[in-house]
Amino acid sequence: MKIELASSYGFCFGVKRAIKIAENAGDAATIGPLIHNNEEISRLEKNYNVKTLEGIDELKDEKKAIIRTHGITKNDLAELKKTDIKVIDATCPFVTKPQQICEKMSEEGYDVVIFGDMHHPEVKGVKSYAKGNVYVVLEESELEGIKFKQKVALVSQTTRKVEKFMQIANYLMLHVKELRVFNTICNATFENQEAAKNLAKRADVMIIIGGKNSSNTKQLYLISKNFCEDSYLIESEEELERSWFDGKNLCGISAGASTPDWIIQKVVDRIKKV
Amino acid sequence: MKIELASSYGFCFGVKRAIKIAENAGDAATIGPLIHNNEEISRLEKNYNVKTLEGIDELKDEKKAIIRTHGITKNDLAELKKTDIKVIDATCPFVTKPQQICEKMSEEGYDVVIFGDMHHPEVKGVKSYAKGNVYVVLEESELEGIKFKQKVALVSQTTRKVEKFMQIANYLMLHVKELRVFNTICNATFENQEAAKNLAKRADVMIIIGGKNSSNTKQLYLISKNFCEDSYLIESEEELERSWFDGKNLCGISAGASTPDWIIQKVVDRIKKV
Repeated sequence: MKIELASSYGFCFGVKRAIKIAENAGDAATIGPLIHNNEEISRLEKNYNVKTLEGIDELKDEKKAIIRTHGITKNDLAELKKTDIKVIDATCPFVTKPQQICEKMSEEGYDVVIFGDMHHPEVKGVKSYAKGNVYVVLEESELEGIKFKQKVALVSQTTRKVEKFMQIANYLMLHVKELRVFNTICNATFENQEAAKNLAKRADVMIIIGGKNSSNTKQLYLISKNFCEDSYLIESEEELERSWFDGKNLCGISAGASTPDWIIQKVVDRIKKV
Repeated sequence: MKIELASSYGFCFGVKRAIKIAENAGDAATIGPLIHNNEEISRLEKNYNVKTLEGIDELKDEKKAIIRTHGITKNDLAELKKTDIKVIDATCPFVTKPQQICEKMSEEGYDVVIFGDMHHPEVKGVKSYAKGNVYVVLEESELEGIKFKQKVALVSQTTRKVEKFMQIANYLMLHVKELRVFNTICNATFENQEAAKNLAKRADVMIIIGGKNSSNTKQLYLISKNFCEDSYLIESEEELERSWFDGKNLCGISAGASTPDWIIQKVVDRIKKV
């Protein structure tokens, strides 16, 4: 069986940057997981003493707090800055952008629509910057019945699919006088998605590697599944099952933006042996 | 044969307003036809001495100049205001809007895209307000290869179809960081189009009445033709042909936004006699 990696996969700019920041800082705590990959989080704790806390309430003797790639809420950041703890910001610049847009647009009197998952930390962070009306939706149907102002600004969670983003924009375009569309979907996400799609079209089995709490990994998996019925989402090589590969000629592999190369390599090595 | 008028048709707000302005003014000249309907233009000339000039160069002894519903270019307006002639503005407020947007957006550093026909007077007027890059397109394919700034503003000729407008917006959304969408398509147009479509689905023959140089009338005709093969575009009852109605049960009628009721009535009366 041939194994082929997607032409674009894995770590994005923001994740690479955050890991470097955490490694350089050392002896610190992150508020929520730095990135959505448990294995990499464990490595950072073991090798660099970078712990993961649930929230700012858990901070005690730490001297340094690292802001996760997904960002935190405006309030939490303000609270953190009141303490003596050194704040190190590893928020992905592509996430800082929708936060700033959300703040600026609501200051200018726009209703803000965020296309994303309201339970995701990135979206919670972005939403917290709005000062006026703000709506978080995943489907255009959720917009029905909302009485918008004439001016609406639309931003996206960075890891969403652009097709759905356009559907939401199209709905809004018909219902408001001015729609300000900020395409804040991350290019890395887009490139990984396109590459996964192209590979899935040809592959007999697709393995998507990444955290099961990772939005962009889940998207990759769904896209892959759309084109290759035998698609599987795993966090590590331990989850691989021999039967998945029976009689297959081409195994395609992709990985979420928080998946380190060393995990991908372990998966490839294990598949080679099945 | 039954004759049925579309649930919405004919004169829009801007046209009604312009005719009232012209009738009240009297003894005046319009720069270009006030509205796109030759019969109504003739009536205004005959009954109110409102003449139609080709351009501001033709102005001689006139005391009053009326700006047509479609507006004129910024330069022409400035030239006109330098003269002693009294300027009466009958530009439809829905057209003034994209003019203002075009001016403001280019002042704020946006590239401007106008969805519309570059040869139409309304579009020429709107375009003339841009101070930076401005592109007039009818198809998203015309946008390919253009190197836009990161910020683009999109407006529409008031009489265009919203589906195409959305396609153009969708193309831009994928290619720029910020897209400011101003849905300047006129509701009256939209309502007339929806009504024509619904009637055309049921009718055996459709008669669309309006100026052959009228953008919104042509749109109505194309929409009608899509759902009812036997659709005809006429300017007056003189063009009706008996054979169109042979063996038909339901004749649907719609009319462009510049078509006065008295012309529609003449058409209906003539059809009743065939």
